[in-house]
Amino acid sequence: MSNDTPTRPTLRLKPKADARRIRHGHPWVYLDDVVADRRSRAITPGTIATLEDADRTPVATVAVNMESRIAARVLSRDPDAVIDAGAIAARIKIALAHRDRLYAEPFYRLVHAEADGMPGVVIDRFGDAAVLQPNAAWADAMAEDIAEALVGLGVVHVLLNASGRARSMEGLSDDTRWLRGGVDAPIAVPMNGATYMADLTGGQKTGLFYDQRPNHAFVAGVSRGARVLDVFAHVGGFGLAALAGGAVSALAVDGSAPALGLAQDGAARMDRTADFTTRKGDAFDLMTALAEEGERFDVVVADPPAFAPAKPALTAGLRAYERVARLAAPLVAPGGYLTLCSCSHAAELSKFRASSIRGIGRAAREAQLIHTGFAGPDHPVHPQLAESGYLKTLTFRMLD
Amino acid sequence: MSNDTPTRPTLRLKPKADARRIRHGHPWVYLDDVVADRRSRAITPGTIATLEDADRTPVATVAVNMESRIAARVLSRDPDAVIDAGAIAARIKIALAHRDRLYAEPFYRLVHAEADGMPGVVIDRFGDAAVLQPNAAWADAMAEDIAEALVGLGVVHVLLNASGRARSMEGLSDDTRWLRGGVDAPIAVPMNGATYMADLTGGQKTGLFYDQRPNHAFVAGVSRGARVLDVFAHVGGFGLAALAGGAVSALAVDGSAPALGLAQDGAARMDRTADFTTRKGDAFDLMTALAEEGERFDVVVADPPAFAPAKPALTAGLRAYERVARLAAPLVAPGGYLTLCSCSHAAELSKFRASSIRGIGRAAREAQLIHTGFAGPDHPVHPQLAESGYLKTLTFRMLD
Repeated sequence: MSNDTPTRPTLRLKPKADARRIRHGHPWVYLDDVVADRRSRAITPGTIATLEDADRTPVATVAVNMESRIAARVLSRDPDAVIDAGAIAARIKIALAHRDRLYAEPFYRLVHAEADGMPGVVIDRFGDAAVLQPNAAWADAMAEDIAEALVGLGVVHVLLNASGRARSMEGLSDDTRWLRGGVDAPIAVPMNGATYMADLTGGQKTGLFYDQRPNHAFVAGVSRGARVLDVFAHVGGFGLAALAGGAVSALAVDGSAPALGLAQDGAARMDRTADFTTRKGDAFDLMTALAEEGERFDVVVADPPAFAPAKPALTAGLRAYERVARLAAPLVAPGGYLTLCSCSHAAELSKFRASSIRGIGRAAREAQLIHTGFAGPDHPVHPQLAESGYLKTLTFRMLD
Repeated sequence: MSNDTPTRPTLRLKPKADARRIRHGHPWVYLDDVVADRRSRAITPGTIATLEDADRTPVATVAVNMESRIAARVLSRDPDAVIDAGAIAARIKIALAHRDRLYAEPFYRLVHAEADGMPGVVIDRFGDAAVLQPNAAWADAMAEDIAEALVGLGVVHVLLNASGRARSMEGLSDDTRWLRGGVDAPIAVPMNGATYMADLTGGQKTGLFYDQRPNHAFVAGVSRGARVLDVFAHVGGFGLAALAGGAVSALAVDGSAPALGLAQDGAARMDRTADFTTRKGDAFDLMTALAEEGERFDVVVADPPAFAPAKPALTAGLRAYERVARLAAPLVAPGGYLTLCSCSHAAELSKFRASSIRGIGRAAREAQLIHTGFAGPDHPVHPQLAESGYLKTLTFRMLD
């Protein structure tokens, strides 16, 4: 791909497009805003180009994908920036310096897309292994350079995970494969004093979600001596953190047997097998059943999948969040804690909070809201996309 | 005050008032919504009464103050609840159980108003001393009962702090006095590994703010080896926490010499006098001066007073927040961190964030937003007042 600034292609903004938005740092150029002629349509997806305004003044260095709704992603506000292997390595190094400062051990999200200067790219690190999700064409084209940069930091195994939904919108394949090395067995991940088992190739997405780390820690901090229920537990995120925080027992509920198996393996590594039980099944059904059995817990957590990933699903999604709250609240002992999570882009904080509060009210419980948390600091947010923070976690305390 | 349910007064909602709002848990009844006749106007402010709907069906137990815009504050959704010394002690005990679970030592906000079932009441605990702010008439009338309940929990010294602005709206005196015991010297407060000196009678408000505790901890977590600038430092909140987190030095800037003196006393208790310096003066001027001196810090924090306490001040307030960001950003070294805070009720998160981002942009710095924090879990929020969270703290990392 040509990346020499004098010879590389240009993409031009329409006169009606707001070039200031890009000059002020917005990282996305929409297809509607660029001149789509035979020349620009012929640009291979992923090509690095120079974005010009309608007067042909250079604005930024971008990655082009005329087949995507986001026709260009800003790689640099410098229109003459060279985006080569060295530039990629430099960006990953800047991202690493932040994670090194935050965490004692190399288990974290290393690159979080736009905010880390790598639009559409996610890299999770699991010790000497890394999972790369190049969810934009430019990054797919440069996947080898990215892998090489990771090797330069001491990473041995690099998996290209091609399962991201965004990839099909970018016209990319779903061929997941090892770019360097290879790991078959699940990896033991230390986090908040707990141990999680991450299955990089068999699991959901990248096998483990780092985003809830501070919210796991918050729940662990109120779990001393507690009986804990972890609904939608996946590989045991909240339940195992609570055990590490001093909970006497944790019950993990999930629909996936492999996820619960990994959670049990984590508990075993923590020598807490006796305190950790699982129940496989539909979370709504199991919450109803537990209530009928008269079960009460000191701490209840529900971290469901995204019920409202996009706007059309918002109304139904909010109703589902309300239902989770209504079914979970009766399971909390008086004075106990209820943590409700949403990873839905479309359900903004105030809407998700209102649904949760309504659900608790319908369960006839009085509560106070003691904590609102978001994704951890290894999931930085681009200033111009600050509304896009997807993860919200609310912790309520029951007053009755 | 009569608090026997058959004999106590009633307050009636107007037909147009939405009684469901109260039945669903909203804690405030506005003057506009109640029947204001000669009888209701004669109710002594602070009297416990039964709220009825327009059909004379009892709705809730309330504290009346017909001289306030909030004519009644819900004390219980049970219309027959007795609010006596025993009921107060029970509520404080429920509040205490939460703080006991959260904190190893008795230094915290013990009661946070509506969310803790005590509308208008704030109680901060400093070991065996407590500061009571009864900012509603009912609580002022029951101050002795509250003090006695605190003594029952082992508190020795109880200060009634009457400086709250809300008190004049409630028609209450500004007579600050000791209800039990008395402490003259500043109290050493342990928090996040740092030591703060709280001057309960001479200082600002209650001498120390507990609300920023988790945000202090977050900044401390990125401060290993850092040179830190703490602007609007008060008694050293962020600066001393950063030193405890491994910062090599902290410079505290504030307009108040007594506050900076207490900060220095805290640093001395931590044996960090050599690493802690102060500069007294206008924060805007001093930030400008530091930039002209070419000073750069790895971590910069600005935690100004409320620039937009209420809606009329919003526009000017947001401009002031933008100015803080614009003056603070140039002081951050590349790869360093900038924490910006707002304790303005009127400046909601998205507006404060936009102002901060604009300010950083005007300083021509590229940044990523890595953390959004609110007041700590000893500052619970009432579910029906969830929009009222006043404290927001944003931490950015500079990419250039």
